[in-house]
Amino acid sequence: MRTPVTAMVITRVNAEGNATADDILVTEEPLEIRLGHGPLDDRQEFRMSVTMRTPGHDTELALGFLYTEGIIEACDQVLRVAHCQQVKPEEYGNVVRAELHPDIPVDPARWQRHFYTTSSCGVCGKSSLEAVEVRCPGPIKPWGRIDTALSIQLPERMRAAQTVFAHTGGIHAAALFDRKGSLVLLREDVGRHNAVDKVIGAAIGMSLDPTEHQLLVSGRAGFELVQKCVVAGIPLMAAVGAPSSIAVDLARRTGLTLIGFLRGDRFNIYAPADKS
Amino acid sequence: MRTPVTAMVITRVNAEGNATADDILVTEEPLEIRLGHGPLDDRQEFRMSVTMRTPGHDTELALGFLYTEGIIEACDQVLRVAHCQQVKPEEYGNVVRAELHPDIPVDPARWQRHFYTTSSCGVCGKSSLEAVEVRCPGPIKPWGRIDTALSIQLPERMRAAQTVFAHTGGIHAAALFDRKGSLVLLREDVGRHNAVDKVIGAAIGMSLDPTEHQLLVSGRAGFELVQKCVVAGIPLMAAVGAPSSIAVDLARRTGLTLIGFLRGDRFNIYAPADKS
Repeated sequence: MRTPVTAMVITRVNAEGNATADDILVTEEPLEIRLGHGPLDDRQEFRMSVTMRTPGHDTELALGFLYTEGIIEACDQVLRVAHCQQVKPEEYGNVVRAELHPDIPVDPARWQRHFYTTSSCGVCGKSSLEAVEVRCPGPIKPWGRIDTALSIQLPERMRAAQTVFAHTGGIHAAALFDRKGSLVLLREDVGRHNAVDKVIGAAIGMSLDPTEHQLLVSGRAGFELVQKCVVAGIPLMAAVGAPSSIAVDLARRTGLTLIGFLRGDRFNIYAPADKS
Repeated sequence: MRTPVTAMVITRVNAEGNATADDILVTEEPLEIRLGHGPLDDRQEFRMSVTMRTPGHDTELALGFLYTEGIIEACDQVLRVAHCQQVKPEEYGNVVRAELHPDIPVDPARWQRHFYTTSSCGVCGKSSLEAVEVRCPGPIKPWGRIDTALSIQLPERMRAAQTVFAHTGGIHAAALFDRKGSLVLLREDVGRHNAVDKVIGAAIGMSLDPTEHQLLVSGRAGFELVQKCVVAGIPLMAAVGAPSSIAVDLARRTGLTLIGFLRGDRFNIYAPADKS
């Protein structure tokens, strides 16, 4: 069993000198996602990706990744997702296999074209935005009025639930809240994109209605995170940190409500655009 | 000319209400890196990668990426690196082409094998570490004694030089300092790995001796950043944030001195391992 934290002996240094100390670090290990049909068949196995992640909720990470990257369009296109048993002992726990519905072809050429299309069909901000729009299930249902008093409470609610951060001080979090601000899902990972994929993978597995939920991330709101939120159809994304220019462009084009610098008793609204 | 910051009109919210305000955001745009020989020849052009980055120092980013990923082993294997002129107008400034020395084959099959080898030859921490070691030019020359009084001054020196952060509050930085703590190079980017590639690309372009320099990063020290530092032969890496378990493993195996949580008047030493 891979664990999300790792114990180590380190040296703490301050003005008084050096001292040996026990410490807890966030675990980072590679995870490979494989796709196939039915019983294991090497001819039909495709190694989709390898990502460095924090162990835990690996099957949700795989499901969320496949969904937000557009490899699957619905949860029921995957019949089963589990850790692979047919791996070397030292790799056990670091390989997840998704068994695709027989109607979904194992088609590496199509997936490679897909990644090519979404990442480099044309290298300008506009083409990146258009590539995301193609993958969206439809226009985002507007979130509506933002409840200021409620929004400013969300970071503290997320932080209070972050078990790994409490031990290590070094991990990203993503949390899904309902409209009343109740915490529905929280996931942590060394990779911010992984934390979001874990939340979205869990949400689609639970058949949650994305339009009635808001996503909060502990770091900045870059293009990749906003893209995942848009593809999942979640209408509001809030970040403790800053958004990037293209993240705001994408939010404004798709109708996503985007909040940034959600800290203390204030925040900024970046999208929809101010019309006053 | 692409710019590192973008002006936008946003809405600021606090307990008193909402107000429209002018804001400056960090720019995020795709950058494509192409490899080829001599005058442009489509048959020999290879599209290496697309990364979302903050415009600025794009050629250094490309050079640093090719070097830290092991595609080139020395700066003189690239004869010229520049923004591509033969692109659509809206893509101009987002495509960089590196002209390889005629002795270096344009060999996509080899590079794809290379990426495969380094990312998924075996999916466990041990194989990830071994893959990095294969790419290292040699053992790291130990940094030696850490000067506590000097180290704790470095974050403030970096922050003071961060022009984009000052405007946007939302960007990563990487800085190279010499043994006396003088700032030699500073680069900023929305992607932490890009900031490090820009610094390393600039350093190899200037033929700096990596063994006489230390690298400071504004965020956490994950596997990917420590790997870049190790491949570049820089003997000390310090991070304002936390390291991950595998980052420490890699540092301890290769002889890199790794400092984390460098904040205020204190820090932790994660590698070399405490022998007391």
